[in-house]
Amino acid sequence: MAPLDIPRLAVGDRVQHELLVREREDKQTKSGDPFIALKLGNSSGVLGANVWKEDVPKLQGVRPGQVVQVIGTIESYQGRRQLKLTAPPRVVPLGAASADDFLPRITQSTDELWARVDAWRAEMPASLRRVVDLFFADDAFRQEFSRTPGATRGHHAVVGGLLLHSCEVAEIARASARTMGGNIPLVTAGALLHDIGKTQSYAVELAGFDYTRAGQLLGHIVLGSLMLDERLATLPPTARPSDEQRLELHHFIQSHHGIPEYGAAVRPMTLEAELLHFADNTSAKGNDFADAMTDTELFPSVEQEFSAKRSWRLERRVWKRTHRWD
Amino acid sequence: MAPLDIPRLAVGDRVQHELLVREREDKQTKSGDPFIALKLGNSSGVLGANVWKEDVPKLQGVRPGQVVQVIGTIESYQGRRQLKLTAPPRVVPLGAASADDFLPRITQSTDELWARVDAWRAEMPASLRRVVDLFFADDAFRQEFSRTPGATRGHHAVVGGLLLHSCEVAEIARASARTMGGNIPLVTAGALLHDIGKTQSYAVELAGFDYTRAGQLLGHIVLGSLMLDERLATLPPTARPSDEQRLELHHFIQSHHGIPEYGAAVRPMTLEAELLHFADNTSAKGNDFADAMTDTELFPSVEQEFSAKRSWRLERRVWKRTHRWD
Amino acid sequence: MAPLDIPRLAVGDRVQHELLVREREDKQTKSGDPFIALKLGNSSGVLGANVWKEDVPKLQGVRPGQVVQVIGTIESYQGRRQLKLTAPPRVVPLGAASADDFLPRITQSTDELWARVDAWRAEMPASLRRVVDLFFADDAFRQEFSRTPGATRGHHAVVGGLLLHSCEVAEIARASARTMGGNIPLVTAGALLHDIGKTQSYAVELAGFDYTRAGQLLGHIVLGSLMLDERLATLPPTARPSDEQRLELHHFIQSHHGIPEYGAAVRPMTLEAELLHFADNTSAKGNDFADAMTDTELFPSVEQEFSAKRSWRLERRVWKRTHRWD
Amino acid sequence: MAPLDIPRLAVGDRVQHELLVREREDKQTKSGDPFIALKLGNSSGVLGANVWKEDVPKLQGVRPGQVVQVIGTIESYQGRRQLKLTAPPRVVPLGAASADDFLPRITQSTDELWARVDAWRAEMPASLRRVVDLFFADDAFRQEFSRTPGATRGHHAVVGGLLLHSCEVAEIARASARTMGGNIPLVTAGALLHDIGKTQSYAVELAGFDYTRAGQLLGHIVLGSLMLDERLATLPPTARPSDEQRLELHHFIQSHHGIPEYGAAVRPMTLEAELLHFADNTSAKGNDFADAMTDTELFPSVEQEFSAKRSWRLERRVWKRTHRWD
Amino acid sequence: MAPLDIPRLAVGDRVQHELLVREREDKQTKSGDPFIALKLGNSSGVLGANVWKEDVPKLQGVRPGQVVQVIGTIESYQGRRQLKLTAPPRVVPLGAASADDFLPRITQSTDELWARVDAWRAEMPASLRRVVDLFFADDAFRQEFSRTPGATRGHHAVVGGLLLHSCEVAEIARASARTMGGNIPLVTAGALLHDIGKTQSYAVELAGFDYTRAGQLLGHIVLGSLMLDERLATLPPTARPSDEQRLELHHFIQSHHGIPEYGAAVRPMTLEAELLHFADNTSAKGNDFADAMTDTELFPSVEQEFSAKRSWRLERRVWKRTHRWD
Amino acid sequence: MAPLDIPRLAVGDRVQHELLVREREDKQTKSGDPFIALKLGNSSGVLGANVWKEDVPKLQGVRPGQVVQVIGTIESYQGRRQLKLTAPPRVVPLGAASADDFLPRITQSTDELWARVDAWRAEMPASLRRVVDLFFADDAFRQEFSRTPGATRGHHAVVGGLLLHSCEVAEIARASARTMGGNIPLVTAGALLHDIGKTQSYAVELAGFDYTRAGQLLGHIVLGSLMLDERLATLPPTARPSDEQRLELHHFIQSHHGIPEYGAAVRPMTLEAELLHFADNTSAKGNDFADAMTDTELFPSVEQEFSAKRSWRLERRVWKRTHRWD
Repeated sequence: MAPLDIPRLAVGDRVQHELLVREREDKQTKSGDPFIALKLGNSSGVLGANVWKEDVPKLQGVRPGQVVQVIGTIESYQGRRQLKLTAPPRVVPLGAASADDFLPRITQSTDELWARVDAWRAEMPASLRRVVDLFFADDAFRQEFSRTPGATRGHHAVVGGLLLHSCEVAEIARASARTMGGNIPLVTAGALLHDIGKTQSYAVELAGFDYTRAGQLLGHIVLGSLMLDERLATLPPTARPSDEQRLELHHFIQSHHGIPEYGAAVRPMTLEAELLHFADNTSAKGNDFADAMTDTELFPSVEQEFSAKRSWRLERRVWKRTHRWD
Repeated sequence: MAPLDIPRLAVGDRVQHELLVREREDKQTKSGDPFIALKLGNSSGVLGANVWKEDVPKLQGVRPGQVVQVIGTIESYQGRRQLKLTAPPRVVPLGAASADDFLPRITQSTDELWARVDAWRAEMPASLRRVVDLFFADDAFRQEFSRTPGATRGHHAVVGGLLLHSCEVAEIARASARTMGGNIPLVTAGALLHDIGKTQSYAVELAGFDYTRAGQLLGHIVLGSLMLDERLATLPPTARPSDEQRLELHHFIQSHHGIPEYGAAVRPMTLEAELLHFADNTSAKGNDFADAMTDTELFPSVEQEFSAKRSWRLERRVWKRTHRWD
Repeated sequence: MAPLDIPRLAVGDRVQHELLVREREDKQTKSGDPFIALKLGNSSGVLGANVWKEDVPKLQGVRPGQVVQVIGTIESYQGRRQLKLTAPPRVVPLGAASADDFLPRITQSTDELWARVDAWRAEMPASLRRVVDLFFADDAFRQEFSRTPGATRGHHAVVGGLLLHSCEVAEIARASARTMGGNIPLVTAGALLHDIGKTQSYAVELAGFDYTRAGQLLGHIVLGSLMLDERLATLPPTARPSDEQRLELHHFIQSHHGIPEYGAAVRPMTLEAELLHFADNTSAKGNDFADAMTDTELFPSVEQEFSAKRSWRLERRVWKRTHRWD
Repeated sequence: MAPLDIPRLAVGDRVQHELLVREREDKQTKSGDPFIALKLGNSSGVLGANVWKEDVPKLQGVRPGQVVQVIGTIESYQGRRQLKLTAPPRVVPLGAASADDFLPRITQSTDELWARVDAWRAEMPASLRRVVDLFFADDAFRQEFSRTPGATRGHHAVVGGLLLHSCEVAEIARASARTMGGNIPLVTAGALLHDIGKTQSYAVELAGFDYTRAGQLLGHIVLGSLMLDERLATLPPTARPSDEQRLELHHFIQSHHGIPEYGAAVRPMTLEAELLHFADNTSAKGNDFADAMTDTELFPSVEQEFSAKRSWRLERRVWKRTHRWD
Repeated sequence: MAPLDIPRLAVGDRVQHELLVREREDKQTKSGDPFIALKLGNSSGVLGANVWKEDVPKLQGVRPGQVVQVIGTIESYQGRRQLKLTAPPRVVPLGAASADDFLPRITQSTDELWARVDAWRAEMPASLRRVVDLFFADDAFRQEFSRTPGATRGHHAVVGGLLLHSCEVAEIARASARTMGGNIPLVTAGALLHDIGKTQSYAVELAGFDYTRAGQLLGHIVLGSLMLDERLATLPPTARPSDEQRLELHHFIQSHHGIPEYGAAVRPMTLEAELLHFADNTSAKGNDFADAMTDTELFPSVEQEFSAKRSWRLERRVWKRTHRWD
Repeated sequence: MAPLDIPRLAVGDRVQHELLVREREDKQTKSGDPFIALKLGNSSGVLGANVWKEDVPKLQGVRPGQVVQVIGTIESYQGRRQLKLTAPPRVVPLGAASADDFLPRITQSTDELWARVDAWRAEMPASLRRVVDLFFADDAFRQEFSRTPGATRGHHAVVGGLLLHSCEVAEIARASARTMGGNIPLVTAGALLHDIGKTQSYAVELAGFDYTRAGQLLGHIVLGSLMLDERLATLPPTARPSDEQRLELHHFIQSHHGIPEYGAAVRPMTLEAELLHFADNTSAKGNDFADAMTDTELFPSVEQEFSAKRSWRLERRVWKRTHRWD
């Protein structure tokens, strides 16, 4: 059965699907009756469902991180679509569920993103491509890279977020290299490699995205360099990059956060490393703005022009313009 | 007579041209003899000339900011080309010289840059173009904009630097808007308008670039907004942008430095303002890197791989890679 | 009917007045019964009123920002005066209420403050007075200036706060100019003009003080300079200040926050601008201290010597001395 | 013989006086000849004197910190008055000279400043005055306080600077207490006591102002509190301030720098301590501005409108307005 | 009767002891019934006790800071030991209780710590010991020092914490002085004296640890120096340390926080003062780590490897390794 | 021939040895004559030698980084010992000289330091020792580690400085682990491994210490982790540490600078990592203090009590106490 397409649900639609319990809050109505606010989701989005007084006992044992079979219809509650359960949700045995299918996911096509990556690889000079291919021509790595989020929370924190973010960084860095006279294939390689350490830093689980032990203790920047050297060691000595070339690739990884305060081991010392750093920020902050516009905590009412409070990701309020330019 | 093309001079070339005295230093040789180290320049570059012991008295009265007629030949001194004067330089009367002709200048074609600006204007929706044209369809403003540097010292500190910088910012911002889903004509308008206040902040004089009184007391960001309102007031009321549109344009100017610490009155509150801010930084820092590579204070010897000291513009050392990627 | 004089109410007093609903909180007693904690106010102050279990339904539809007709008596609850409602409050139609009458207001006489402003204007040299009068001799502006708060929350956040704050700043700046050898009329003009942009930055509404769109997107400092140039343009050319004089007045506005981190476009470059900056801070922080002493969140009990927590406005705890000096 | 009145010297005046050698620099003319640039001074100011080639040997042994008998005439050199020595300066034996007579000094009358202090003391309530008088009714302390500078370099770094600064602080703090509702005698006591530790922190010697060992190791803030407790211990127990009163006076001393980063042990926790802090800053920065206007390093040419570089005391450039307001 | 040994209680144990009410929270069960969560403690630790619905009224008037007689048995609740009350707690009259007996206390033996202090004193040269003994040979001071915590909340915030912390600092500073060539007895004296001001800064009361008025208004660093001078004044003049020696001891106190931002009046200017500063930090942060490992807010579940959130004392997450090194 | 023992040279001693030219400055006497100030050194120290007017030409071609054969005698010049050359120095061919013999060196015995290291290794549990021995049981690594400085300039910037620093850190960390309850062998392993990356970051050359390309582009922290993984890969799989153990060792390296601003990839998350961090700082700053006491730029005169200026390594002035404690 095709997964439920949450963004397209309309009032009155009937739902009989497996969904992941993302959140459960036990609350009380103003009149003192217990109710449970659920957030249920899959890779297409998240849907609220309130369970009232008499049905509360039926949810005993239902916890975030579980996949449940739900039956109900879509109704409108306080101006938003919501699921009205017509039967108590039934917990689906763990083995049958894959986290990737139930966590939020990029809306872009993974295949199209990989096609772009592959086109960029095809243009690279041999010495550069040999290193990039250690990762990006390896199916196991591609699969891992495809499912890793860009962060546990924050920018691109969705399945596929790392792939999308890396492509955005590459595109912006390529454009600025073109304008500012930088080496385009080189900065592209930097963009593809800069965040590879995130594949070992973040865990994708039904309970959500989390840090791995290595992610906590070392962070993705160090892990990226360790991964690079580990794969370089698998190349026959004659095919390895020169010492300078190897150091330049490590330098992209180590400097991409720009300054030590933000985790860079060193500041960017080449034009290309600097352009990569700005492209990385541009993709991250651009994604923060896009997410802010649809964040119901920032804009609880659709009439609002300014966010009700500061976005913690952007550390400021944001503006949703109401005018047009035409 | 065509101005001297300094970058193309070869040892043995004969020089008989007007040049601007950029610097004069009265020094002593190790053996205690007086000599004068001159830096002479025009819009194409700068050339050193040492005047030795017996000729020192002939330079009495020659000061930076004067244009002089020089006669001499190009010779090699400590591995660099230098002018050997065969006659004492003669000061040219002030009236005859225009600062723009003697100060360093962008190497790009001004016409080509304007062609890009005009193509972008042509694509803008009417409401936006009307405002942009208040400046960019005004020949007097274009002339002023063409000669203003991007800074008195620092990035793009050459005649035409503001035009070049604005075009770079527009290009990078357009590319990132394309990638991140921003409004391309709008961010282009922001890029063109963001630094207009610099035309009133910097003075272009034979003695070099300097701040104007208004530049010192208010800075280019406030001046930009004052200029915008001044020109908007010349539009017939019906042709004026709406209140929201006007505020959005001011917001580009006021937020483009990103954070108050760097002079922004407010932080960027829209995706487009954020993208403009990053594009501004990318152009500025990219230019800093390009200049660093040819800065003889940073790289006194051509064999050096790392700059001898920190670049004050980049606040770090920079690396000139010696390897190739092929 | 004269508005209720809240600070003078005594236990047993009967109340039958229109009051603004400032806050409404739906809570539960320890035994689980619903009750509503109201804060009702007018320009003289704020009064609490709890509505218990059986009357809760009568408050349906009563929301902050509404003016209600209340009937009740003053009683003592947990050591504080409180209103006991004897009938459900009745919502008064919107058209009949003006925000200024129901929001908190300075206790000082507006007329006396204006008398001081007018006396200072009378002492100014003609060139200075002509500019100051563009605003302070204009009745519409005076009315606007009279009702604007000094902030939406924070120092002088009451109707009339901007007028009071400007007068305090003027007085302190005049005294320090006298001591330190500054130009007294000039620093007075700076004090009157420094915050004029706040009239366009803050909205005074029944729901409370808020930022306007312009206040959010540009801030009061930029708006002040735009307003100054707008009014200067209305002077006949011969009556306009010189370029230097105009820049000096803008410089007061742009530098009064002292450093860029706090929003100054430039740092104060004259003695008078520096004195204005310190006077501005002194008035603001002095007002913060005065408010802290009567803040029941900081001093929940009257016996307390030190505030129970940090004042967010002062970022520290404050001390209410219990001794006298005599 | 009355000391030389340096500010009133005119070209052609004859000088035969004792002056302190403030600086001595051994230099060379452009033609390679040795010469010595002296700065000679007394309490009224400083005077330059160049000693040329043939007279250089006569200055052997003349060092900064010595008092010399000079004979010469005033002439004009590069637009400034300067002393032309007609005989080699003769070193005056050390015992005969007092540092106070030869170091720069405030131009205000010490007696008038003390008269103000005494008037303020007379207005104080008894409990406060008893503590203030421990210092300010003690002739030995007054003498010490009269000669201490406000700093070794920086604001009020002249003999009498501490007295002048303390009076300025008192005046500004009194005015702001009047405006903001503070306790005027209390803030005056705070102003008089806040810097008493400087009398033990700075040494006044012919070689100039310097830190004492205690000033280096503890700083004037801690020393002030130690001095206060030392003198309080001399009061009969019944005349001592209460514990709270004593702590409040210490609190003025400990908090007057406002924040720990600038040396405050604690932040000001009362209105009066806060007002004292701002008054302290206002006096210091106001003095920095006054000094900047006559600083020939900042304004090497009298035509300059903006200082040639940043003032290190103000950390910014300053503006000398050329227009008038009338 | 011996006080209850809380850490050693086992399920089923019977309790009939006096305990201090540390916290009381009035809450509701999910089904809406009221209950009270108590935290009861003595010097050995803290124990939870929930009082359910029907017994809630019996706890009327029981407040934190009171000592109560409790009767009950130990049971297991959600995996933790908890007290089940079998009778309502009875409030013990105030006079009968000493705060020291009921607040948490160091687990180390006070006598052993004093033995170390005394051994260190015995090794000190006479001039140093004379000053140290002014405090550490005075029984009243020792008693005070024994009961003072190291902080009101934060590191060593238990009865005896100051003594333990001072010993830890001394031991670490002695070891680093041995390694780095510092004066061992001197740095030991610094370690013993550095925090003496805390005895006047913190109050030990049944309601918990709190700041005294002097602690709020001046802080422990200034108080330490005032205490030192007060006791030095009691020495006969011939037995007093020299001026330099006295200043060096004050310098230890004033510089031990390292930088002004953290409260140091001056930065450490000697090797020994620097070593003391690092030893102070090492003891404080080491204690923070030890406490974090047993903090149930950081590690709500015993299976957790990483703390659930940041420790506010360490400003980071901490790791509880699960492996062994053997 | 044994190398010259510079610290033991006495006036009148005859010198005929090879020394490294550390600095050469071409200067002029006050009377305008040229002279050359040389600094000559070997592993025991540095010696000044001035070459006067007539001998200047004989030093043509003598440059820093060369080893020269010098002949002369020790004389006293301005209170310091200095070499008077009796013959022009003769340049020794490059091949014959090893940088280690001519650069400054620790005064401690390398053998004794290694003995301590080996004793610590002997106490380690097997799983820990296996990793430590990958480096410290490898003669090639020991040789490299023995000659690496602790920094290119700054603390321990001498041949052998890294070994000495690592031992100091180990000793201090062991003592604080003993006091604070940490794992002693583990923190010792951390101390030995924390700076291994410096062996690849610094170059030891006759011209002095410098950064390698890898040191510039990545820094010693990243290099340390890359080196660790490289050597771990050489262990047979069964002998490798577990994943957690490996991460803990990397965590020591990555966190030892404490906070990102100072280069840490992550903050220390275990007690042992925190203790290592403080021990590292203690050794570094302790060494800074020791060096400051003998630095003739800080103490140009032996009578000085306070350094003439701030130490750039300690960012403050330092105090050389003149009293004794006995």
